[in-house]
Amino acid sequence: NTDSTNMRLRLPLLCIILEVILIILFGTLVEYNDDTHAKLWNENRTDSATRNDHENEFYYRYPSFQDVHVMIFVGFGFLMTFLQRYGFSSVGFNFLIAAFSLQWATLMQGFFHGLHHGKIHVGVTSMINADFCTGSVLISFGAVLGKTSPVQLLVMAIFEVTLFAVNEFILLSILGVNDAGGSMTIHTFGAYFGLMVTRVLYRPNLDKSKHRNSSVYHSDLFAMIGTIYLWMFWPSFNSAITNYGDPQHRTAMNTYYSLAACTLATFAFSALVNPEGKLDMVHIQNAALAGGVAVGTAGEMMLTAFGSMIVGFLAGTISVLGYKYLTPVLESKLKIQDTCGIHNLHGMPGVLGAVVGAVTAALASPDVYGHGLQRVFADVETGKWNPQSRGGFQAISLAVTLGMALFGGLITGFILKLPIYGAPPDTHCFEDGLYWEVKTFQYHFYTLTASFSERGWLDTEGTKAL
Amino acid sequence: NTDSTNMRLRLPLLCIILEVILIILFGTLVEYNDDTHAKLWNENRTDSATRNDHENEFYYRYPSFQDVHVMIFVGFGFLMTFLQRYGFSSVGFNFLIAAFSLQWATLMQGFFHGLHHGKIHVGVTSMINADFCTGSVLISFGAVLGKTSPVQLLVMAIFEVTLFAVNEFILLSILGVNDAGGSMTIHTFGAYFGLMVTRVLYRPNLDKSKHRNSSVYHSDLFAMIGTIYLWMFWPSFNSAITNYGDPQHRTAMNTYYSLAACTLATFAFSALVNPEGKLDMVHIQNAALAGGVAVGTAGEMMLTAFGSMIVGFLAGTISVLGYKYLTPVLESKLKIQDTCGIHNLHGMPGVLGAVVGAVTAALASPDVYGHGLQRVFADVETGKWNPQSRGGFQAISLAVTLGMALFGGLITGFILKLPIYGAPPDTHCFEDGLYWEVKTFQYHFYTLTASFSERGWLDTEGTKAL
Amino acid sequence: NTDSTNMRLRLPLLCIILEVILIILFGTLVEYNDDTHAKLWNENRTDSATRNDHENEFYYRYPSFQDVHVMIFVGFGFLMTFLQRYGFSSVGFNFLIAAFSLQWATLMQGFFHGLHHGKIHVGVTSMINADFCTGSVLISFGAVLGKTSPVQLLVMAIFEVTLFAVNEFILLSILGVNDAGGSMTIHTFGAYFGLMVTRVLYRPNLDKSKHRNSSVYHSDLFAMIGTIYLWMFWPSFNSAITNYGDPQHRTAMNTYYSLAACTLATFAFSALVNPEGKLDMVHIQNAALAGGVAVGTAGEMMLTAFGSMIVGFLAGTISVLGYKYLTPVLESKLKIQDTCGIHNLHGMPGVLGAVVGAVTAALASPDVYGHGLQRVFADVETGKWNPQSRGGFQAISLAVTLGMALFGGLITGFILKLPIYGAPPDTHCFEDGLYWEVKTFQYHFYTLTASFSERGWLDTEGTKAL
Repeated sequence: NTDSTNMRLRLPLLCIILEVILIILFGTLVEYNDDTHAKLWNENRTDSATRNDHENEFYYRYPSFQDVHVMIFVGFGFLMTFLQRYGFSSVGFNFLIAAFSLQWATLMQGFFHGLHHGKIHVGVTSMINADFCTGSVLISFGAVLGKTSPVQLLVMAIFEVTLFAVNEFILLSILGVNDAGGSMTIHTFGAYFGLMVTRVLYRPNLDKSKHRNSSVYHSDLFAMIGTIYLWMFWPSFNSAITNYGDPQHRTAMNTYYSLAACTLATFAFSALVNPEGKLDMVHIQNAALAGGVAVGTAGEMMLTAFGSMIVGFLAGTISVLGYKYLTPVLESKLKIQDTCGIHNLHGMPGVLGAVVGAVTAALASPDVYGHGLQRVFADVETGKWNPQSRGGFQAISLAVTLGMALFGGLITGFILKLPIYGAPPDTHCFEDGLYWEVKTFQYHFYTLTASFSERGWLDTEGTKAL
Repeated sequence: NTDSTNMRLRLPLLCIILEVILIILFGTLVEYNDDTHAKLWNENRTDSATRNDHENEFYYRYPSFQDVHVMIFVGFGFLMTFLQRYGFSSVGFNFLIAAFSLQWATLMQGFFHGLHHGKIHVGVTSMINADFCTGSVLISFGAVLGKTSPVQLLVMAIFEVTLFAVNEFILLSILGVNDAGGSMTIHTFGAYFGLMVTRVLYRPNLDKSKHRNSSVYHSDLFAMIGTIYLWMFWPSFNSAITNYGDPQHRTAMNTYYSLAACTLATFAFSALVNPEGKLDMVHIQNAALAGGVAVGTAGEMMLTAFGSMIVGFLAGTISVLGYKYLTPVLESKLKIQDTCGIHNLHGMPGVLGAVVGAVTAALASPDVYGHGLQRVFADVETGKWNPQSRGGFQAISLAVTLGMALFGGLITGFILKLPIYGAPPDTHCFEDGLYWEVKTFQYHFYTLTASFSERGWLDTEGTKAL
Repeated sequence: NTDSTNMRLRLPLLCIILEVILIILFGTLVEYNDDTHAKLWNENRTDSATRNDHENEFYYRYPSFQDVHVMIFVGFGFLMTFLQRYGFSSVGFNFLIAAFSLQWATLMQGFFHGLHHGKIHVGVTSMINADFCTGSVLISFGAVLGKTSPVQLLVMAIFEVTLFAVNEFILLSILGVNDAGGSMTIHTFGAYFGLMVTRVLYRPNLDKSKHRNSSVYHSDLFAMIGTIYLWMFWPSFNSAITNYGDPQHRTAMNTYYSLAACTLATFAFSALVNPEGKLDMVHIQNAALAGGVAVGTAGEMMLTAFGSMIVGFLAGTISVLGYKYLTPVLESKLKIQDTCGIHNLHGMPGVLGAVVGAVTAALASPDVYGHGLQRVFADVETGKWNPQSRGGFQAISLAVTLGMALFGGLITGFILKLPIYGAPPDTHCFEDGLYWEVKTFQYHFYTLTASFSERGWLDTEGTKAL
């Protein structure tokens, strides 16, 4: 079976062609923006005596960018290492498709909403936006984890990044809505796109690999590295591209409180749904993060710490309940095989976040926001602002996003179904050895001890073995 | 025995009740501060043309906050994963009690020293302070690690956070002393509180779990993730809430030098106290951090790089010697079972830090500090400043902290002794399986290889097995 | 054999003597700089009403410093944990020699190019520079990994730091060249120094330890922690000490694009050079980082995103090809045993970076840079600037660096060859047990499963064991 999954020509060819195309497009379309260009930045300085280096956007955005970067590469990468024999692929393919997506996203986002005289201007804000778009692809990766070849994943990224940019353009530029932390553009879009892709790629015989579709002790600890980094830096994620000053500050704090409340809900419901009251690492690793997703839209508004905590608590609750009761149903009834449970971490909390955003926007008033109103809601300045219509546009955006994601995922799913990408056979899903040099005995000790255990050579406590 | 430790009702009930109380109190008491409030921040902007967004405290404090946040969740969490079968609980319970404590601390610290017209004002500084208080609880957690249920830990956190806030109020607001990095308020308090709790919870039959009270190869590597992050970000910890400008800059640098010197002392004494000259991971993981603790008070003063290095070297030395010679005596003579050796990492170095702070304060003079004096010592502005009395107040603060910690730990210990929290039996301490879903065979290979080794099936080199 | 490698006296003695010397030298030579000194910072404030705390270099440099710090301690430390039985030493010795080197580097760099009236002034910039110099030592450590005692490593650090400071002085102060990210001063110097040291320390019988000179499944995952952190924070590394404003911003962005392109090249060529098209963790862990090395000199110039991507792509390509085809030749023909393959990650990409820097400097013009020219090329202000000669000086600097590194490595190698440092015997290289307390059975399960596998007790899939 190694022939059908051999990557020797397919992967190098695709990577090299893609990178050559990227280099050509960057060479013809991309330019430094005012804050990164030696001439432009220093010209402006001369013009106006009050402009100083500390006003360069680098100092307002770069620390947040690095936190987001950690979430993309360490957070998502290690979160998915929970599978016992898929650690190399989880971190490695995450690395590959993220490195591609951030370049492609720079072009697509620039093309749709960043052209200046026909050129795409880049700087730290475009870097953050590219990382955000990449996050959406990595969410979808979670749904198909273990069941796809790296070539398939790159092809998925090409389409998903493009559609992400279109959807983002509709929401932010046409409808003019708020979604700084991406409850809709990133989480809802990435989740439903990925769920539709995995639906189309449904494998009726995935059972043949089920002994590998679970964690072992140390792989769960590696996954916790991903979880904790995502959790800690989520305040930076949601606040990375809000306006300077109070909006950035407030967003970070609202997210912090939402996540704290979410964590308590996660532990509570994880113990409650287990007959022996035992906690489940799957819940802790994932549901505790739902609070960050759910304040992705409203975080920059005057949601208050109190409101953030309520939203976070709800998000954690629905996420745990989703893992316990909904995921099995999605698989058995709707044929959606969602390896990481992205519906529970990004799907439902993303929709919750969109609704909370719509309601919070509809409740906004000059009394509460003062002169800060126009710094949160862009259309205040144009004079068209009206809280009810603002809330309405937020709600419409959710519908648009769901439509785009499901439709895009459907098309992309069928493209990925072509038998040319070297996808793993049903018997070899969730297995690093297919695409990586692995000294096979290295993970056999799990099997070995399992066999011994079944034979009674090890007691259940493991303390009086043999 | 699973009945007595079943968390199905206890843990959810406690988590949900606590979070509901927190939400209600936040709803009635907590408000955005000037820097996070849309109206207030932008009103001030209009009043004064010179105020700019870059003056928002977010840009001075948030990068430090994120470093502190990493120390709390990754640093403390992974440092405690050294136990072979307690990794889920170490990271997981750390996560739970930290998420609770930071919310509760915001209320308690706000109540004692942050009320504005009856309201608690929150922003990035309150977030750092809440994380600091949480750090104190996690220090105490280290003493009782492996011997407590999550319910017990939450109850401990309720009391410890409250007493922490009282002690901090006495030191900072009444006595007006300096303790930016918390040698006293965080480390000394957390350590002696935890030591007293574990003394009250003394288990004469803990031997029954001793085979699990040790590390294995990979668990020690996970623990090093915690150590290294604590070590790297300690300069941010000590400088996070000092005044802007030179104090913040100087504190970070002093801490950097103290830690570097401490590391050399740790390696030196770890090899020296071992008959074969072999290094002990316990020392490297813990004692190398004592240098950060020991400049927690004096770091913001003109301690000089040279002085910082002497303090760091001393701290590393006493910490290693403590692990080697004092911890066994504390256990056998004083019945203090200190799982992580917090007395060596936080207790003694904290006291050292308090003394160094008192001496450095007593030596301060306008000659050395110039106009910077009032930016380090708050009472210069009130005219009451006098270096000797300042040093004296610092010393008194240490005594107050020790008293508060020991008394608070005593009371809390007795409360935790009630047989209602589902504490683990003596035979099942240091064991994840009690509170977590664990596929039991997963950590059996350690036992298996140990058994084989004892039977001579594996030689001591491990290279010619079987 | 434990006698000859016993560290009980050697290591403590060396550590304590070194630290005492450091403390004495710091006490006599080192002073706070203007931005860290309570008196000096606040004096200047009074003199000029426009100077504000936010102008303290702390706020421009400290976030970058922390990212660099993470690269030094987590990045390098964990990258080297890939060996199956050398994780304690990789992280631990990395920790020790880094903690020493940063102190020693502060003195050496200060002595050669930072004296003010006979005193060394320290602040966040000196901290970054000291970390940079430490990076160079850790690169060399990669070449001799597993074959040296901690005492040897400290002795190597003493000499390497000193020569690094001399070379840096020649390049930056005498020749006045640009090398903000250290393609030459850090990577080329560290690599060729280390390669020469390992050449002199050549072990003809290293085969006796070859069964330990490889990775296992989980050690490769630990190593990926190092890789990913190095990759993410490299933009901060290259931009940490450039001028404020556009140069810092531009450097970070150029590095980001170079690394992204490098990652695609790495995956492409890793699959291409393997007969079965399987990816090799050694390539992913190392070659994907070469893009950061290769824009270390030119990153601050107007290289453009497009140029950065070409450089990154080339760097990844030569790095993978080096691992596959050059490393075996270096070992068999030139007797250079390069454990981590530093020639492929730092050597060749460093030279490439120097050449790219020379070319980019030679192409610089006022048309492109405007008033920003003098902020990148220091000699513009002195009026001596001329793009061709600038390019020429850059090229000369590469030659100087190679000469200094090879000569320094040769001398240091012979000093390290003296039989007094407790180096490991050929039979016990790549083995933690020599210098660390290790419960030996802990890593035996690898051997155990290997034995079982050889006997056919485990099939190659590991799914139907026994």
